[in-house]
Amino acid sequence: MTPSISAADLRLPPGPVDLASLPTNNTPGFAGDKAEGESRLAALESDLSDLQERLWAESKMGEGHRRVLLVLQGMDTSGKGGTLRHTVGLVDPQGLRITSFKAPTEEELSHDFLWRIEKALPEPGYIGVFDRSHYEDVLIVRVRELASAEEIERRYGAINEFEKRVVDEGTTIIKCMLHLSEREQHERLLARLDNPEKHWKFNPGDIDERALWPRYTEAYEIALERTNTDVAPWHVIPADRKWYRNLAVGSLLHEALTGLDPQWPVADFDVAEQKARLLNEKSQG
Amino acid sequence: MTPSISAADLRLPPGPVDLASLPTNNTPGFAGDKAEGESRLAALESDLSDLQERLWAESKMGEGHRRVLLVLQGMDTSGKGGTLRHTVGLVDPQGLRITSFKAPTEEELSHDFLWRIEKALPEPGYIGVFDRSHYEDVLIVRVRELASAEEIERRYGAINEFEKRVVDEGTTIIKCMLHLSEREQHERLLARLDNPEKHWKFNPGDIDERALWPRYTEAYEIALERTNTDVAPWHVIPADRKWYRNLAVGSLLHEALTGLDPQWPVADFDVAEQKARLLNEKSQG
Repeated sequence: MTPSISAADLRLPPGPVDLASLPTNNTPGFAGDKAEGESRLAALESDLSDLQERLWAESKMGEGHRRVLLVLQGMDTSGKGGTLRHTVGLVDPQGLRITSFKAPTEEELSHDFLWRIEKALPEPGYIGVFDRSHYEDVLIVRVRELASAEEIERRYGAINEFEKRVVDEGTTIIKCMLHLSEREQHERLLARLDNPEKHWKFNPGDIDERALWPRYTEAYEIALERTNTDVAPWHVIPADRKWYRNLAVGSLLHEALTGLDPQWPVADFDVAEQKARLLNEKSQG
Repeated sequence: MTPSISAADLRLPPGPVDLASLPTNNTPGFAGDKAEGESRLAALESDLSDLQERLWAESKMGEGHRRVLLVLQGMDTSGKGGTLRHTVGLVDPQGLRITSFKAPTEEELSHDFLWRIEKALPEPGYIGVFDRSHYEDVLIVRVRELASAEEIERRYGAINEFEKRVVDEGTTIIKCMLHLSEREQHERLLARLDNPEKHWKFNPGDIDERALWPRYTEAYEIALERTNTDVAPWHVIPADRKWYRNLAVGSLLHEALTGLDPQWPVADFDVAEQKARLLNEKSQG
């Protein structure tokens, strides 16, 4: 089936970015309500599953070297984990390579910022998913001044060159910024505090980070503008409605895989001969 | 909900193993048919999802160091991949660490056989899944004489000591042998040849391996007997019926997680104070 939301609905236009002007609670490309959105997402499962298996099969035989990399960025509570569970979770877990990037370790800090990213790239046939990514190195690092201005400046170009190389190697990159309102984050943090089963997801530092919201917004706007390339464009996903966010990311993944159009490999052996071997074996058995 | 199949239904009794005496097409612990089995498995999803998230949460706060390791072994076409897709795939992929062990690389061969296994063990909070495992080092290695008799003999004890240490560190190990009949494998290989979408899963070498079926059976019997320990017992899953295999492994996973009874962590901050901070912030906003 064809999802109604397309990449064109979500793609960030080139040029300066003003996040305040981009809605967080609309549903571009989809006129239905929550129930319809959820059933639409569920209906994508068999297609996603089939496409992923074809991509995988293609990589096992012949020259297949194609793969997909889904990059999820967004403020705390914007739903990176929920997207992984509800959308990415529709795909056979064997074909997934999920990496959640935390604060870098000592070893990682001793290398270039892209060192740990390179190691986490998906192999051919896989759908890689980054829960946070190299963009943290121009987001929190910029807000918290964890690197020099010159170094941060260098990174935008380094990211573009890196992503171009990754795309040239056969990777389709889908970059998603889960765009949440400050008010919705407030509600979600309160909800975490009100539910003892969610206390473990809360950290008092989350409230301190909220005080830096304008600086994070600025850092996102700069990063989005400077890395919104033709080979790896950004998509801004209105994320105040969880069901829409899940459906939107699922639709982007579906569209990307459909575009790759992976084909079942043709046998590199004589099928009739092998069948005869098996049937002959049976008559002797 | 409580599944009707329990580990006791599937656990291999201690002592010598005669695989020919163990059915491949019965449904221990479950009286229903395929449709009932499939809906029973689907009904486990919310429980498995909840238990996995609790295990994960436990590991993020406090002293949580517990984890689960599901080991899947079985002949070609016994359904290791199908189990991953249909049963393991019910769990949030963020909490999974799946490793498919292929023929060892040069580097892996230069180390002890458990070197690559150790590296693939799940971290606290994760459900690790081995699609093939260190048991290949006493199965194909024995059948194909890829190591000396002395070395293979050494490995049974080494595996038991290794698994005991892993269990002592906080891992619940669930070992499953997917027990397929030679006849059912024959049918499944034929089905692969009859379906162009499955040709990529077929390798002419699969038929050569079938000629070694008695030797593989013997290698399994020895391995199962010698590594069927109290801390990491074997379960033999009748695998001729795919739906039963999926439900059985799901039930074992469910029982193991239920036994761990992971609890939501208690907040290590003052909830009321943090809530007041958030609400106060809102009134200023």
